[in-house]
Amino acid sequence: MSGSVTIVGIGPGKDALITPEVQTAIAQATDVVGYIPYVERIPARDGLTKHASDNRVEIDRSRHALEMATEGKRVVVVSSGDPGVFAMAAAVLEAVEHGEAHWRDLDIQVLPGITAMLAASAACGAPLGHDFCAINLSDNMKPWSLIEKRLRLAAEADFAMAFYNPRSKSRPEGFGKALKTLRDACGDDRPMIFARNVSRPDQAIKIVPLTEVTEDMADMRTVVLLGSSQTRIIERDGAPLVYTPRSVAG
Amino acid sequence: MSGSVTIVGIGPGKDALITPEVQTAIAQATDVVGYIPYVERIPARDGLTKHASDNRVEIDRSRHALEMATEGKRVVVVSSGDPGVFAMAAAVLEAVEHGEAHWRDLDIQVLPGITAMLAASAACGAPLGHDFCAINLSDNMKPWSLIEKRLRLAAEADFAMAFYNPRSKSRPEGFGKALKTLRDACGDDRPMIFARNVSRPDQAIKIVPLTEVTEDMADMRTVVLLGSSQTRIIERDGAPLVYTPRSVAG
Repeated sequence: MSGSVTIVGIGPGKDALITPEVQTAIAQATDVVGYIPYVERIPARDGLTKHASDNRVEIDRSRHALEMATEGKRVVVVSSGDPGVFAMAAAVLEAVEHGEAHWRDLDIQVLPGITAMLAASAACGAPLGHDFCAINLSDNMKPWSLIEKRLRLAAEADFAMAFYNPRSKSRPEGFGKALKTLRDACGDDRPMIFARNVSRPDQAIKIVPLTEVTEDMADMRTVVLLGSSQTRIIERDGAPLVYTPRSVAG
Repeated sequence: MSGSVTIVGIGPGKDALITPEVQTAIAQATDVVGYIPYVERIPARDGLTKHASDNRVEIDRSRHALEMATEGKRVVVVSSGDPGVFAMAAAVLEAVEHGEAHWRDLDIQVLPGITAMLAASAACGAPLGHDFCAINLSDNMKPWSLIEKRLRLAAEADFAMAFYNPRSKSRPEGFGKALKTLRDACGDDRPMIFARNVSRPDQAIKIVPLTEVTEDMADMRTVVLLGSSQTRIIERDGAPLVYTPRSVAG
């Protein structure tokens, strides 16, 4: 039997957002590898060994997956959301590029999933309905100056924006700095959307004008969206709907 | 019975990419509305009426869906990919905002799907593995000058990029103009990825250095990705793997 590494996305939380393709890969796996809370979402069964590891060991975890595949195992690497968006696919490929030459011959596949920003967007309407960008606000792996530059250019391009990893206990100040940059660069009161625990039973969506946002509205379980200058809010009796129109006047 | 409008994404082509949440919504619908080839993907059954319409009538189609929901129907509006990414969710909400006041009281939901750029990214590795943007290259609904401005700013921000609707029979020249702008703004030979019919049996992935791209490589069935300046190609016996590393040196 020849081994394989399949890097899958299990969506942002709700099992009904896991694609059948990913369910099949998990059903056929001999080993599942990933960050503890994501591996916990995979049901135990005979013939499946679970290998849960902590955050920030993505390269070690990737090497472990590649080693097991070399031994003939069918390894599934689980990511939350989509594996290609700030998740495990890039980590595994980084390990392949800099690792053992024979790892390149392995059967390596990436299976897409529902990424948090699109689940968040759907939960409040269609704020990413026109051109948009996705930025990881953590400065663990890139300099803050680059994040700031990207925020300013994204505002100038009038993209709607999605922010992953907006704020953590070890980085309490980044989101406040990002807000200052965005307020300055956008210069208006477009809506910012905080989607916490998106698609889970305790999902909470807040829509807040950019000038009224406070930095404690975000944490690591929140994905944050920001409208473009064109984004509209439809008020109604229930939760408002937010969308960015498909067209921009010439 | 009170009606509803549920705007769903059926992914880029393969049924195994349709989420169970969307499958359930389709199974409970009385009416399905959408562009002809997407409605064709929904299996016929008793109790389900299909309403297929041509391209470019998104607002009429949306109003029709809202009218049927007002009459008590459970209407599903189908989009390819994700309904919130250059698809029907923004169109329906535009119709709600400018339409009958009572449409705001309807049960309106958006259910996310696998959008083409993430299926394309997965098919070749993880080229969108770091900060990225998504741009619709059609100038049917925005001026070309805005597209060009966004391309230049996205290159300056060093985003990886995804391009929807790169080229059509009625707009044969736009993609060539975009290429010229991108070559000038990027100034390097980063990989461009052409993913045609992504996730379908006839899926074709081409990875081409930006300087060697010709405009006929794209059509309306292709989603185009462009790496950032950091994007890497892992050569091997099979198809190469492309990824954008998670980190940028300080």
